[in-house]
Amino acid sequence: MLFLQGGATQQFSMIPITLLRNTGREAEYLQTGYWGKKAIVEAEKEGKVKTLWSGQADGYKRLPDDAELSFSEQAAYLHYASNETVEGLQFHRVLGPDSVPRVCDMSSDFLSRPVDADRFSIIYAHAQKNIGPAGVTVVLIKKSLLDSAQEQPNLPSFLDYRNHVATHSNYNTPPVFAIYVTLLVTRWIKDVVGGLENMENINHRKAELLYQAIDDSQGFYQGWSRKEDRSYMNATFNLTTPELEQRFLQEAAQAGFSGLDGHRSLGGVRASLYNGLTVPAVEQLLDFMSTFERKHR
Amino acid sequence: MLFLQGGATQQFSMIPITLLRNTGREAEYLQTGYWGKKAIVEAEKEGKVKTLWSGQADGYKRLPDDAELSFSEQAAYLHYASNETVEGLQFHRVLGPDSVPRVCDMSSDFLSRPVDADRFSIIYAHAQKNIGPAGVTVVLIKKSLLDSAQEQPNLPSFLDYRNHVATHSNYNTPPVFAIYVTLLVTRWIKDVVGGLENMENINHRKAELLYQAIDDSQGFYQGWSRKEDRSYMNATFNLTTPELEQRFLQEAAQAGFSGLDGHRSLGGVRASLYNGLTVPAVEQLLDFMSTFERKHR
Repeated sequence: MLFLQGGATQQFSMIPITLLRNTGREAEYLQTGYWGKKAIVEAEKEGKVKTLWSGQADGYKRLPDDAELSFSEQAAYLHYASNETVEGLQFHRVLGPDSVPRVCDMSSDFLSRPVDADRFSIIYAHAQKNIGPAGVTVVLIKKSLLDSAQEQPNLPSFLDYRNHVATHSNYNTPPVFAIYVTLLVTRWIKDVVGGLENMENINHRKAELLYQAIDDSQGFYQGWSRKEDRSYMNATFNLTTPELEQRFLQEAAQAGFSGLDGHRSLGGVRASLYNGLTVPAVEQLLDFMSTFERKHR
Repeated sequence: MLFLQGGATQQFSMIPITLLRNTGREAEYLQTGYWGKKAIVEAEKEGKVKTLWSGQADGYKRLPDDAELSFSEQAAYLHYASNETVEGLQFHRVLGPDSVPRVCDMSSDFLSRPVDADRFSIIYAHAQKNIGPAGVTVVLIKKSLLDSAQEQPNLPSFLDYRNHVATHSNYNTPPVFAIYVTLLVTRWIKDVVGGLENMENINHRKAELLYQAIDDSQGFYQGWSRKEDRSYMNATFNLTTPELEQRFLQEAAQAGFSGLDGHRSLGGVRASLYNGLTVPAVEQLLDFMSTFERKHR
């Protein structure tokens, strides 16, 4: 486990630099949303990338079904994002064949639920969603993967995972405050919440309350994502007109709710439900939504 | 001004990637110590580097005099570190011709004294010496330098300064806590200390007290650096034997002084005197040194 700087963005490059560059092989990526696409753009700079599936034509409203995915056993690795924060899409299963290194961007759901980490060759997650303040990115990487990685004499030293492994994340001065808060959060999850199963249960409860309210509104609130791909981390929805959405966001802000604006690339409303958000906070939002609906239906 | 992640280490690569790679030109570097050398190693991966002067043969006990430096007007840029933390060497002047982009690693003395910033094309400094907690690196860069930098379509996006400029350091989520504390420290320097001139005066007073004690000890304490190159940030010195040094460090630790061990690459004693260290703290160290000297001379 490494604590690195540079966010998920830096991992978008370090992964293909390490596992794809100069190999002549092909990496398989899933273009499931805003972040999945960003990862592809950086990987294509380093080698051959096959976009195994893209939700772009559908406006990223759903994730692929198993029947739509045909994985190659020869791929250098498979990369996907477990949760798309912008669109509010989340995989509720592990993808791909076990014979291919499985690389997963868990930036927005790491430590929000139990994960069978052994099935992944690389898991990476920036801290600033569920685990700590911005500035540190957790990278879990199988050492065997690095043993077989090519030597690249001219690679900048800080882009070589092995330098960070050899120095126990002290290759350069690490972001100690962010790492310390991450320690406190993991203790909180373990000792106060009672573990990742409980964390997941709480996160599910929050999301289910909100999605239920959306579904019960008979079209006043309209969920963005296909139901089976809905994210437990980011609930995205629209109102019937852009004007009503603006009014909703304005009144919500006046009522003390912050951060409900959808991502600039998508618009609409996005309620993020990360570990730090409480069930009562969701209930307050539901009260507001209910009042707003009565007033404006 | 940018707030980036990855420490000075990342700048060691971003600078030659931006200003040297594929140019066919030569960059000039000064190998003045541990950090100056690290910067050269990374720059050589990107293009031609001329080491204009090296203190390695002398064990990095001094910095070059002007007569030893012959700068080229054709260099892609000149790079040097204003302060070498490991050896305790500091330039008390600005180097090089104004016609060549001047790039300076000020990681360990930025905001410890006034700087004629206009004379530098790039100044970079990680926070964790004088300006804030680890996790953020301040980069001052002349925009004109980026306008003339080559397009590199396959450069990882996070290594392109222009992406960070265009997004006002929000290309990826910035380390907000470290940046916030940096804001508080700059306010402290401005409002409490009374500006960089005062900051420099305080830093000089601390260093002069300590160097005076070293020089007055008649060889019991031996300064590492040539007097005219002594650092106001890191006072490095030895005792007469390695055994006595060990004893000094042990007794100092018992007396509550931390961080006095010399860098692992050099040994000896190093008293760092960054902005956050007070004059009374130096006076307490002097008391301890005086007592230790009486006991062990």
